[in-house]
Amino acid sequence: MSASQRLDDLGISLPEVTKPAGAYLPAVRSGSLVFTAGQLPVVAGALAATGKVGAEVDAGEAAGLARTCALNALAAVHSLVGIDAVRRVVKVTGFVASAPGFTDQPSVIDGASALFGEVFGDAGRHARSAVGVAELPKNSPVEVEIVVEVETTTEVS
Amino acid sequence: MSASQRLDDLGISLPEVTKPAGAYLPAVRSGSLVFTAGQLPVVAGALAATGKVGAEVDAGEAAGLARTCALNALAAVHSLVGIDAVRRVVKVTGFVASAPGFTDQPSVIDGASALFGEVFGDAGRHARSAVGVAELPKNSPVEVEIVVEVETTTEVS
Amino acid sequence: MSASQRLDDLGISLPEVTKPAGAYLPAVRSGSLVFTAGQLPVVAGALAATGKVGAEVDAGEAAGLARTCALNALAAVHSLVGIDAVRRVVKVTGFVASAPGFTDQPSVIDGASALFGEVFGDAGRHARSAVGVAELPKNSPVEVEIVVEVETTTEVS
Repeated sequence: MSASQRLDDLGISLPEVTKPAGAYLPAVRSGSLVFTAGQLPVVAGALAATGKVGAEVDAGEAAGLARTCALNALAAVHSLVGIDAVRRVVKVTGFVASAPGFTDQPSVIDGASALFGEVFGDAGRHARSAVGVAELPKNSPVEVEIVVEVETTTEVS
Repeated sequence: MSASQRLDDLGISLPEVTKPAGAYLPAVRSGSLVFTAGQLPVVAGALAATGKVGAEVDAGEAAGLARTCALNALAAVHSLVGIDAVRRVVKVTGFVASAPGFTDQPSVIDGASALFGEVFGDAGRHARSAVGVAELPKNSPVEVEIVVEVETTTEVS
Repeated sequence: MSASQRLDDLGISLPEVTKPAGAYLPAVRSGSLVFTAGQLPVVAGALAATGKVGAEVDAGEAAGLARTCALNALAAVHSLVGIDAVRRVVKVTGFVASAPGFTDQPSVIDGASALFGEVFGDAGRHARSAVGVAELPKNSPVEVEIVVEVETTTEVS
């Protein structure tokens, strides 16, 4: 089943591509790899939450925000090559704005990883790093970037 | 216009490659991708500034430091494959040593992104992540690493 | 000399692959690149140390932990493609959970870089970033991820 069919079955519509926060692009392709920009949990143009995970934001809420970041990452990929050109998710890096003593970054970024599994099945399984950082842009609790492998024989932008 | 011509027109001379801070190389090529080491704002062998952005260093100064990091990244690429072998800048990751409450990492890393636009035009547009970290090597305010796509049909080291 | 022979000569046995801390894989191949997940200094299923570098953990101990991360990264690569399929180490990213004022991340990550040099010789030399982060999963002092180039003409999983 194609990724776009799975998204339909899941009742998920990819959002509009989030406007970059600076002088860069949402995603860039080089050969068969697409690198996305770091994605914030933006919904309809605004951050869904702000603050540090382990303080203003709890781990469960943060996992939901990581899922939103992941959706925005897929939107960025889709805008560049079309979601059905994705052969697999290769690498996910999750940055969690962490209050002192918060060390459960993996459960937060699992929110992103789970989405990729739902949409791509086994092809959504990826290598991943999750780290706790001091501050993120606009006081976002989470930022996620991905690398995906895409078809290069099909017509892509 | 070639990148080396643009650099000439801009009056920019690429600096000497910054000596790695440890047991690693300034840049490595694999296929058509060159990955650089994380670059600090080193000028003539010394950090141009130290301290946290949002405290000892303001955002505007930090953007200038990020530009210096970007120049050092290009110097690293140039030393490996020659600057005119660059087909495009693919990915930029910017780490900003951030004082508590400083959340404008994007405007800092725009200093690096702008340089790539000046030197490569549209081919300088890239995907990017900017995050705020607790500490950077030698108390540097900024560190920038890049991935670029290069020609592989030309003679490269 | 092959990497497996060097490991034998060094008296190093690659450990079992560390179980991922979440919904992801230890390593993924795309074309000739293998990306590993972020590796913690896990030995026999448990973290070898916890705490911040510059506080509970000193830089020398942390370098040893980074070496353990590097071994775990090689184990992840080995489990996917076999260690002798590695053509070179391309990129290393080291995250150091840093106490305020600790700025010697490079000497910590040198513990990982040195191992790659011992195992692969010149092919172990890599581009590298080292940054100081606020918190790491499970209160780990260090996390290391790598990108390696591998043979694609040999049979790989």
